[in-house]
Amino acid sequence: MRIPKHIGVIPDGNRRWAVRQGKEKGEGYDSGLDPGLELFKLCQKVGVNEITYYGFTTDNTKRPREQRLAFTEACVNAVKLLAKEDAALLVIGNTESAMFPKDLLPYTTRQIFGKGTTKVNFLVNYGWEWDLNSLHGANEEKVKVSNVIKSSDISRVDLIIRWGGRRRLSGFLPVQSIYADFYVVDDYWPDFKKEHFYEAVNWYDKQDITLGG
Amino acid sequence: MRIPKHIGVIPDGNRRWAVRQGKEKGEGYDSGLDPGLELFKLCQKVGVNEITYYGFTTDNTKRPREQRLAFTEACVNAVKLLAKEDAALLVIGNTESAMFPKDLLPYTTRQIFGKGTTKVNFLVNYGWEWDLNSLHGANEEKVKVSNVIKSSDISRVDLIIRWGGRRRLSGFLPVQSIYADFYVVDDYWPDFKKEHFYEAVNWYDKQDITLGG
Repeated sequence: MRIPKHIGVIPDGNRRWAVRQGKEKGEGYDSGLDPGLELFKLCQKVGVNEITYYGFTTDNTKRPREQRLAFTEACVNAVKLLAKEDAALLVIGNTESAMFPKDLLPYTTRQIFGKGTTKVNFLVNYGWEWDLNSLHGANEEKVKVSNVIKSSDISRVDLIIRWGGRRRLSGFLPVQSIYADFYVVDDYWPDFKKEHFYEAVNWYDKQDITLGG
Repeated sequence: MRIPKHIGVIPDGNRRWAVRQGKEKGEGYDSGLDPGLELFKLCQKVGVNEITYYGFTTDNTKRPREQRLAFTEACVNAVKLLAKEDAALLVIGNTESAMFPKDLLPYTTRQIFGKGTTKVNFLVNYGWEWDLNSLHGANEEKVKVSNVIKSSDISRVDLIIRWGGRRRLSGFLPVQSIYADFYVVDDYWPDFKKEHFYEAVNWYDKQDITLGG
C-alpha cells in the first residue's frame, strides 16, 4: 500500500459542531484537541512522515474576540500536547503580529521531542499572502519557488484531509498543495473517527500520482 | 440564486476516454472541443462573467510527442472557436518556450470578439512556478501578490469544476484558487453533459462563501 509521506489536515467544523451542541461557537475548539492527537498517533502507526495542521490564519483573526481567544488557546494546547510525543515540531506563521501567541515562539524553529520521528508542522497565524511575499526578496532572476517561500521547511503535501464538508483549500499552503490529492470528510472535526483517516488513506492509495506530468 | 462570477475549468480525462474507446491516448483531445464551446454558452446563459480553461501546462509538455502535438492543436482550435463568440479572450502561458504555439501569440494580450461580454482566459503552456516567479521582480517590500503574478489579469476563481474524477488542482492558478470551491465530475471531459454544469452551479449556490474569514 502506498502511504502518503505528508498529510495536510484542515480541521474544520468546530463552530458548527458547537452550535449543534447548543454551545457558543467558540466552545467547539477545545474538543478538537483529542482528535488532533489521535490523528498524530494513527499517522505514526501507518508510517506517515510529516503532518501539517491548519491551526488558524490571519484571515481567521478577524472573527469575534471570544472565538479568536478560543482557537488561539486550542492551538497553544495542541502544540504542547504534541511536544509530549516523538515529534520534530515546527510552528509557522506571522510572528510579527500581536495575534501570534507568545507561548508558541519557542517552536518557531524546529524542535525535536522524544525520538522526533514524525515531522509536525503547525500553521499558526499563517497567511498564504504572507507566505508568498518573501518570494520577491529573492535575488536571482529565476528561483525555485518552494525554496524561497516562508514555509520552505514544509515539504510538498501528498494528501490533504479536510473535515466539515467544505471543498476548498482556504489558503492552506498554496505552493505545497499544488499536486496534493484532496479528501473531504463531511463530519465535523470534533466528531473525528479513526475510520475517516483510514478511508482517506485507502482512497489515496487508489489515486494515480502524476505530479502534473 | 448566487451564480459564480468566475469558473475555472479543468477538462481532464481525454486520454482515459480515448483508451476506453479503443483509440490512441492522443486522440481524445479533439473530442473536447465541442464540450468547451457548450460550456461557454451555458456560462453566458446563466450569467457567469469569466471562465478560465486549463489548456495545457509546462508539466504536460513532457508527455510523448504525439500527445503533445494533439493537445496543442486542440488548444489552438478551441481558442479559434471561442474567438467566434462574444468573448474577451486572453491566452496566458510561457511564450518564451518553443512549446507555446505561435498561432496563439496574437491572443496573449486580451482581444475583444463580438460584444466581448464574457471574459475567457485560456492557460496554454502555463506553469504555476512560472506564474509565481514574477513575484520577486516586484520592487516594494510588501506587494499584493495577486497584482504581481504573471496571471494578474485573471480574477479570483469562485468555482473550479474538474472533469475526470481526480480531486486535485494540478497547478491550476494557485493564487486565484485560494478560496475557490472545488467540484469534481467523475465523467471524462469528452463525455460532458450540461447536467454536470448545472449540478456544479447548484452545489456552489449551497456553499457559504467566507473568503477565509
